[in-house]
Amino acid sequence: MADVATALANVVGEEHVLAGDEVPPEYGRDESLGVAAERPGMVVRPADVEQVAAVLGVAAEHGLPVTARGSGTGLSGAAVPRPGGLVVSFERMNRILEIDTDGQVAVVQPGVTLAELDQATAGKGLVYPIFPGEDGASIGGTVATNAGGMHAVKEGVTRHHVLGLEAVLATGEIIRTGGRYVKTSTGYDLTQLIVGSEGTLALVTEVTLRLRPRLAHRAGVLAPFPGTEAVTAAVPRLTGGGLDPLVLEYVDVLAMAAITENAGLDLGVPQEVRDAAGAYLLVILENRSAERLDEDVQTLGEELAGLGAADAYVLAGDRLQKLVTAREQAFWAARHAGANAIVDAVVPRAELARFFAAVPAIAGRHGALIGGCGHAGDGNVHLSVFQPDADALARLMDELLAAAAGLGGTISGEHGIGREKTHHFRALEDPAKVELMGRIKKAFDPDGILNPGVLFG
Amino acid sequence: MADVATALANVVGEEHVLAGDEVPPEYGRDESLGVAAERPGMVVRPADVEQVAAVLGVAAEHGLPVTARGSGTGLSGAAVPRPGGLVVSFERMNRILEIDTDGQVAVVQPGVTLAELDQATAGKGLVYPIFPGEDGASIGGTVATNAGGMHAVKEGVTRHHVLGLEAVLATGEIIRTGGRYVKTSTGYDLTQLIVGSEGTLALVTEVTLRLRPRLAHRAGVLAPFPGTEAVTAAVPRLTGGGLDPLVLEYVDVLAMAAITENAGLDLGVPQEVRDAAGAYLLVILENRSAERLDEDVQTLGEELAGLGAADAYVLAGDRLQKLVTAREQAFWAARHAGANAIVDAVVPRAELARFFAAVPAIAGRHGALIGGCGHAGDGNVHLSVFQPDADALARLMDELLAAAAGLGGTISGEHGIGREKTHHFRALEDPAKVELMGRIKKAFDPDGILNPGVLFG
Repeated sequence: MADVATALANVVGEEHVLAGDEVPPEYGRDESLGVAAERPGMVVRPADVEQVAAVLGVAAEHGLPVTARGSGTGLSGAAVPRPGGLVVSFERMNRILEIDTDGQVAVVQPGVTLAELDQATAGKGLVYPIFPGEDGASIGGTVATNAGGMHAVKEGVTRHHVLGLEAVLATGEIIRTGGRYVKTSTGYDLTQLIVGSEGTLALVTEVTLRLRPRLAHRAGVLAPFPGTEAVTAAVPRLTGGGLDPLVLEYVDVLAMAAITENAGLDLGVPQEVRDAAGAYLLVILENRSAERLDEDVQTLGEELAGLGAADAYVLAGDRLQKLVTAREQAFWAARHAGANAIVDAVVPRAELARFFAAVPAIAGRHGALIGGCGHAGDGNVHLSVFQPDADALARLMDELLAAAAGLGGTISGEHGIGREKTHHFRALEDPAKVELMGRIKKAFDPDGILNPGVLFG
Repeated sequence: MADVATALANVVGEEHVLAGDEVPPEYGRDESLGVAAERPGMVVRPADVEQVAAVLGVAAEHGLPVTARGSGTGLSGAAVPRPGGLVVSFERMNRILEIDTDGQVAVVQPGVTLAELDQATAGKGLVYPIFPGEDGASIGGTVATNAGGMHAVKEGVTRHHVLGLEAVLATGEIIRTGGRYVKTSTGYDLTQLIVGSEGTLALVTEVTLRLRPRLAHRAGVLAPFPGTEAVTAAVPRLTGGGLDPLVLEYVDVLAMAAITENAGLDLGVPQEVRDAAGAYLLVILENRSAERLDEDVQTLGEELAGLGAADAYVLAGDRLQKLVTAREQAFWAARHAGANAIVDAVVPRAELARFFAAVPAIAGRHGALIGGCGHAGDGNVHLSVFQPDADALARLMDELLAAAAGLGGTISGEHGIGREKTHHFRALEDPAKVELMGRIKKAFDPDGILNPGVLFG
């Protein structure tokens, strides 16, 4: 290992190689509840793409497993290194290289956080519309997991906004994919293949992102419904009508209580309405015109009433922002409350009611408490599972994820497979596809040095 | 070959195998100007996915090159078979399997045309927003080329709407990718990899498409500008302001004359304005509310005046539809006028002016006439090149496509590489990427039976 350290120090400078006991423990973990931290052998902090390529050359030469690291906010263990392996941390590659207002494009290094990019675009009247609920996440990390978030119902997910990449292959070659354009039909779309590949195909060193105009006005409507079924039945009516909601979030009563209590939030919903509510729908609209927004909120209120909402509470400004922030921190609230696992399943939107109907029975069979909220607009359900017994929890998760897959859904919407869900991935995915993915992996990384153990297990 | 014919007849029935002289010549070509027709050895017309898999099994056994065929409306020769090879025509797999209004999803077989899907969705208040200008194109063909079209500036391109696929691998395995959801982070995105792969990775047998609400009101504004530079300078102002145009088309005076004359179209632009115009911008807006549309058209007119437009002519209803249709048929008009090549280059939107400025010099150097129109909103430029001398034309195309690539663009936005542009693809693309794509191709199709000669040459 001393050889390796010397070789890496020659690339990035001695002060940017940490080895053995010098490595702070945070480099060994992410925020996954189900993956234990590991001790990497070394951490290297490259400053540019050439250094990343040279680092990969060293790793390839020594057969060292390489795990890329952004902010470490992932929820599936994809940034947890192999014991003794090499962590390539992008903390120094954290520059916004350009905000191209004419092209409506941002070019950033992978270590830039969503918060930093949001600040930089705000002044230009533009926005990068991916808000996965953790604004400390690095762009590199969100590209690796194809992060989604609350705005996906209107804006799509990360892959819909990544126009191009610079990346280093395991062979040390630097490639550039895509560019500052939406249209291309020029060979296989390597950009889209690398997005969501969780650091197993290439290391991303630069990202070209599509930006959108930042609309000035936003309002939310919180609608209590008698139950889950009414909420899920309302969702397609609201997405099909042309109001084009930015957010359509489902929050069950357990999650709503946890969220509001955790944030000390009073939403102005009277106690008797809260007592009668079985579930909530939060709808957020935005518009460049305040008048049109007001009209749309009015229309939305009428539509919600027609769909069986008990009432509709308009939230704007600070109150809306507080609820959104609290909702985004639902993961932390659940964790604080002692949740043992977080589900990130997806079902077709039209199957949401059936999935929600199956959940209590599954919880009951395994002696667990399950509550949650989810991105109802796109069928992405986050459930907090409380079952401290590891075996019972594992059986419950098997059943829950199989139920999602059985409804035509998938086991991860936005957190990724990482190290946490490899067992479910292999159990529920078509073996022909897993083998094909394995051959694709080999086409990129013949010696398997990039994030071994992630995705394929 | 008799063995093969018998084996195929056993799969699809004798009446669905055409061999030798029975094969009508249209199975040997598409609409590309630069790729000569070939004579396939056989044509097979499977009825379902199992038949497609069995057909591929026969082809693999006999090492027969396989070219998938939809409507044959492609512009790059990707549907031109190998001489003596096998054409798999999807003409019998032409059913719309489902329009899921709750999920806002259509599930279709590859032989369905865009016109058929548009008709089926119209009655449900939904739309599949990809209009590449040829409504006889098959969905399978548009998936293979990642078709774009005029709405891309607002709606993106085919890949942004393909949620899932059923496909047959060269090994005969049937896989299903994606599903009725937008969010997924569950392994490599095989859907996105197959989209745009021009029949070289797998044969697509079913497509799950995302639909959007069909907005009821639409209006166009045609603005004559003094010249190209003023048009390209206006584009970013119009995309950045929040009006969210559905269409932003650039039409030069040559193309406008050809289009209107070809269609016998009077747009109400006075002769003196036409005489002074250097280029036109066509902007189309849509809205669910007629009042809002009127307001937006008003705002747009003011913005265009501020951006240097000589005037702004509002086109609605029949007149707008006629201009759009005429613009869509610009390819046919150019062909009718004797164009020798059609360019489908892309440059970053902010580089459009520079690209347009380079074109006359390139035309002059090679004694050619070049006119055109293009999707200004997304930097996709279609030029008609008139130069009957094949060598001069080849040199001109080399220079023109290199200019686009040199500005950070790419050689095909929506027509694909096919057989026509393999030379340019190999000349202008990074060899490391071409090799990587070759390894990906091998991961799907180890014996290289799927559309050999396409993309890689």
